[in-house]
Amino acid sequence: MNKNSSNTMALAPNTSNKRETVCIFGTGDFGRALGHKMIQSGYPVVYGSRSTQASSLIPKDAEVLSHAEAAQKAAIIIIAIQRQHYNFLTPLAEILHGKVLVDVSNNLKINQYPDSNAEHLAELVPGAKVVKAFNTVSAWALQSGTLDASRQVFVCGNDTEAKQMVMDIVRALGLTPLDQGSLLAAQEIENYPLQLFPMWKFPILLSLGLTAFFFFYCLIRDVIYPYVYENKDFSFFIAISIPNRICPVLALILLALVYLPGVLAAIIQLYRGTKYRRFPDWLDKWMLCRKQLGLVALAFASLHVLYTLLIPIRSFVRWRISSQIISQAQNNKTEPLNTTNAWLSDSYLALGILGFFLFVLLGITSLPSVSNNVNWREFRFVQSKLGYLTLVLCTAHTLVYGGKWFLSPSSYRWYLPHAYMLSLIVPCIVLVVKFVLIFPCLDKPLTRIRQGWERNPQYSE
Amino acid sequence: MNKNSSNTMALAPNTSNKRETVCIFGTGDFGRALGHKMIQSGYPVVYGSRSTQASSLIPKDAEVLSHAEAAQKAAIIIIAIQRQHYNFLTPLAEILHGKVLVDVSNNLKINQYPDSNAEHLAELVPGAKVVKAFNTVSAWALQSGTLDASRQVFVCGNDTEAKQMVMDIVRALGLTPLDQGSLLAAQEIENYPLQLFPMWKFPILLSLGLTAFFFFYCLIRDVIYPYVYENKDFSFFIAISIPNRICPVLALILLALVYLPGVLAAIIQLYRGTKYRRFPDWLDKWMLCRKQLGLVALAFASLHVLYTLLIPIRSFVRWRISSQIISQAQNNKTEPLNTTNAWLSDSYLALGILGFFLFVLLGITSLPSVSNNVNWREFRFVQSKLGYLTLVLCTAHTLVYGGKWFLSPSSYRWYLPHAYMLSLIVPCIVLVVKFVLIFPCLDKPLTRIRQGWERNPQYSE
Amino acid sequence: MNKNSSNTMALAPNTSNKRETVCIFGTGDFGRALGHKMIQSGYPVVYGSRSTQASSLIPKDAEVLSHAEAAQKAAIIIIAIQRQHYNFLTPLAEILHGKVLVDVSNNLKINQYPDSNAEHLAELVPGAKVVKAFNTVSAWALQSGTLDASRQVFVCGNDTEAKQMVMDIVRALGLTPLDQGSLLAAQEIENYPLQLFPMWKFPILLSLGLTAFFFFYCLIRDVIYPYVYENKDFSFFIAISIPNRICPVLALILLALVYLPGVLAAIIQLYRGTKYRRFPDWLDKWMLCRKQLGLVALAFASLHVLYTLLIPIRSFVRWRISSQIISQAQNNKTEPLNTTNAWLSDSYLALGILGFFLFVLLGITSLPSVSNNVNWREFRFVQSKLGYLTLVLCTAHTLVYGGKWFLSPSSYRWYLPHAYMLSLIVPCIVLVVKFVLIFPCLDKPLTRIRQGWERNPQYSE
Repeated sequence: MNKNSSNTMALAPNTSNKRETVCIFGTGDFGRALGHKMIQSGYPVVYGSRSTQASSLIPKDAEVLSHAEAAQKAAIIIIAIQRQHYNFLTPLAEILHGKVLVDVSNNLKINQYPDSNAEHLAELVPGAKVVKAFNTVSAWALQSGTLDASRQVFVCGNDTEAKQMVMDIVRALGLTPLDQGSLLAAQEIENYPLQLFPMWKFPILLSLGLTAFFFFYCLIRDVIYPYVYENKDFSFFIAISIPNRICPVLALILLALVYLPGVLAAIIQLYRGTKYRRFPDWLDKWMLCRKQLGLVALAFASLHVLYTLLIPIRSFVRWRISSQIISQAQNNKTEPLNTTNAWLSDSYLALGILGFFLFVLLGITSLPSVSNNVNWREFRFVQSKLGYLTLVLCTAHTLVYGGKWFLSPSSYRWYLPHAYMLSLIVPCIVLVVKFVLIFPCLDKPLTRIRQGWERNPQYSE
Repeated sequence: MNKNSSNTMALAPNTSNKRETVCIFGTGDFGRALGHKMIQSGYPVVYGSRSTQASSLIPKDAEVLSHAEAAQKAAIIIIAIQRQHYNFLTPLAEILHGKVLVDVSNNLKINQYPDSNAEHLAELVPGAKVVKAFNTVSAWALQSGTLDASRQVFVCGNDTEAKQMVMDIVRALGLTPLDQGSLLAAQEIENYPLQLFPMWKFPILLSLGLTAFFFFYCLIRDVIYPYVYENKDFSFFIAISIPNRICPVLALILLALVYLPGVLAAIIQLYRGTKYRRFPDWLDKWMLCRKQLGLVALAFASLHVLYTLLIPIRSFVRWRISSQIISQAQNNKTEPLNTTNAWLSDSYLALGILGFFLFVLLGITSLPSVSNNVNWREFRFVQSKLGYLTLVLCTAHTLVYGGKWFLSPSSYRWYLPHAYMLSLIVPCIVLVVKFVLIFPCLDKPLTRIRQGWERNPQYSE
Repeated sequence: MNKNSSNTMALAPNTSNKRETVCIFGTGDFGRALGHKMIQSGYPVVYGSRSTQASSLIPKDAEVLSHAEAAQKAAIIIIAIQRQHYNFLTPLAEILHGKVLVDVSNNLKINQYPDSNAEHLAELVPGAKVVKAFNTVSAWALQSGTLDASRQVFVCGNDTEAKQMVMDIVRALGLTPLDQGSLLAAQEIENYPLQLFPMWKFPILLSLGLTAFFFFYCLIRDVIYPYVYENKDFSFFIAISIPNRICPVLALILLALVYLPGVLAAIIQLYRGTKYRRFPDWLDKWMLCRKQLGLVALAFASLHVLYTLLIPIRSFVRWRISSQIISQAQNNKTEPLNTTNAWLSDSYLALGILGFFLFVLLGITSLPSVSNNVNWREFRFVQSKLGYLTLVLCTAHTLVYGGKWFLSPSSYRWYLPHAYMLSLIVPCIVLVVKFVLIFPCLDKPLTRIRQGWERNPQYSE
């Protein structure tokens, strides 16, 4: 144990005598981890505990006292116990008067209690200054020093000075405090660490569903059909060919779904003649996850690019090309250059490249650090103008790719059209409606509605 | 309307009774949108208006009073009216004494007035504490909840406590306040939302001009020349082949232009013998948009990579390769491996890959969140050392690509050299001058000048 | 000189009369550069100097007085002199009483003195309020306006109000202040600008070593062996073929090394039965540079992808394919499609694409601005679940790539196995151990240990 504590000291040379004592109520895992870290950063730590016998688990350099004694030794008391046991603090109210109480607790479910734990604490000990902090930090991360994600500590409280004191401790531990305002923010801070990508749920479920549908669709058309009618085994298409059908289809559909709610909202506003009525709930939620939808679409587009670029390396493709060349050579035929074909092939590739390039640009501007550096006008320019240009390019890419096959009956197998034809439905609808909305007879009233004008002011009375 | 307000409440359970009343002067679009949002976040809102008849546009839960009555009900008054009408506040000066006035106004043009709106307000109502805030937020975004870009609210003011109160409201609305210091910062904050990528204008115009020039240059050489002399229709080169000539040329020229001003600055400093005199204005401006120039160059380089990787999929390329193979097979020829060719081809590809890789690294380090995490020494290492290495690699890539064609007369059509030869001029100049500047006889005095030494101290007297 | 000062004024219209005077002690390079910048931003500047003769180097609009006189003119005094000369301030203690002293100094080495310069200053002038700031900004960057990297100014100090005053100046100069808490943070702030990517040293040295080893390994197998036995000159493999062997090997090894320390830590904790004892030093350091290891691995993986995608453009590859086709055509052979081969080739490509895609996702989530926006639970989900999935996919990619060659004796040259076989050792070990650790009989006690439980509490007594 001696070696251990000397390691601890090495990290905080000569500073232990300068920091103010901090008291921690509760010797559970988080209390111990926080105490360890604080001692490392040079704070004298006093534990308040029911049993004052020094447990071996508690950091060696910390004192363990009764709650009342410990509280008197420090101006800041960290309450590292669970909400259910907060009641034992009521008899200590007098000692805690004027002290800074730091609530570090978390719940097990989102909105488990009607009020936040920190507000509950403030009600129980009205004389103390309650600050919410540290609940987003993991004990394990504190212990092991691997704090890559959770360097940010959300802090809120009604007393500015108390908040400052807590934020200074946060900084001393090598973390970044983020002032979230008054104690009313505590509920949100307590819910934060319980979330698991809440905005991503709908886009990911939607794309999983669509992926499954298009997988079986392509499986029937491209693997089962040739097996049944031509007795050819193309099962290896499952590895690359079919994913490379699904990815562009999903990218295009999801990208169109990013712009569909905006178009729907415009239609609703035009119909209602006002912007001061809420949209239906499903539309609101849809609008809020547009960024996530777009990023999932970008992921599929990137996969499509990778799959496409690997085409010439595939052993199947090399075999097909070389057998074509050999049969031509054996028949002494030399095909002349088909300029129309060259035009079609080159222009759908060029449209795809430009569409993907703009798509990546959109993705980069949605990085938090980039979008924080542009103002509202710039953001709208990028997301609206460049976004629609991307959609136009990607739709054109798919249309030109289809090219001459579009109306050829041989491309329908078991009456099923090519997957890319299905993918064109939503983007074409969005582009047509958007094109109609640009006409001045619709654009002018829409702009006025969005500036606050109402067609029937009496309507809402 | 009932459904609407219950929706509103769902977002702010049990908090409406805890927040302090906020007063809003002005019932225009922004005032209404802000009021809506505040009521959603649990603030009681009072509107001050000329006509106290409750208009249907104003949120149902808000009171509408005369300006004087409304002002008395709240400590914070949001002035959501235009600068031209600020004069009506003068008679209210007594009531507004000691209140926090929040200026949310924007102008139509950059630097429209000699002083900022907020400073003008502070002069008109000297007893009030004026805080500038919310002007970067759009009413439409507040209304619809789509605040992706503009979560940041710049706040400035001379009174720290007033600023704190406003920043707490900002946080309660789910936005991020950014303290910008005293009211002197108001002018900049008011100009901010009127900008549209000011630093990008020059790089984008320059690259558009160069693109147009090289497009017609390549069109003449690669499409019109073969049409005139060999009557071949290569018009489809416009889709991929010509863009893939333009992109690398522009990427190289723009990358060299990133490093040219640094070299020019060094020459000017050496010539003048001091660093304490300003550079010419054009050089100053050039130096300030180097990052943007570099990113545009990176965009062209990325397009070049995409175009190049797609080469083997192009139908024209497949046709050309297969006709070559067929003619070889028919003539019973088998070419042996040309090792020199293999060396040339592989090394220019390898140089290109490494150059592009370093270029992307440079691009990543210029992301705000990454460059904020490196110190000055690290940033200079990356941008200067790695930057020059990138330029060297890309120039070498182009030189080796040219290889044996360089002096062959057949590569000049109508006396026009290949586009890539033109692109080598600027980077070669930059690299040669930089190489000369590295020699100790020039590097030593330059370092001393940059550390503050002057050759002719009396010169500047 | 007149032109110069009019330029200066153009940048700060009408503001010079509103700012408070700032005093600068020291007329060295940094003091002058800061003074220039402050005058540009509208601050009246007074220099305190030993010799009160106005030197030509000092900005024209600044006054130069003796130290005592200058100090009396301003509330904020910037100490732009070196630590060795701080002693001259002792006699001025009375004048400096209550003033804000800004320490801008840097040292030449990390931890050069036992205490920080700012704390030393606070001891010498106990009556003053010492604030540490500006030490991370370069004089040359201030002068030239190119402040891309170092817009952030770390500020710390014990007096909140003094800190606020300094932060307002920082903002007025167009920089971003970052409050780092009390003066105890000064040591860290002073060490910050002396670092050069400290966390990257080990990963980069390791990968350089491994690169050198595998370069010579592949050189022997792929260039020297065929030269000796078949007298073929494959020296051009050095440009692309060998790098494209080294890159995937290093990417896989380094990726496995990211997850190895976590596995070792779990074993150590299981063996010890507690998490409250420190890991060995080497393991601690290893765990702290896992992010950097992963990013270097990602760089190698990206290079591998680029090299692979360029394969069909290489002149050697085109020659090899066309000679194969020609020889087939001349022999009138047509190979049928080998479905097993097609399966193997397509599935190793597909595994590689998916692995690389997840790898890039991991890289994006490690961007500071992205990882700041996810909570601890989300970060663990991405880095642990997705990370292991990436490792599994990349290992499978390598295994399937090897495929049938694995046991063929012809793939051993001079008893040396293929490089990719060597690269599989570490990832397979990590995956097997991780798989074992997932079994409930090991996972359950491990989870309990990580929640704070100890097997032998008396052990540590």
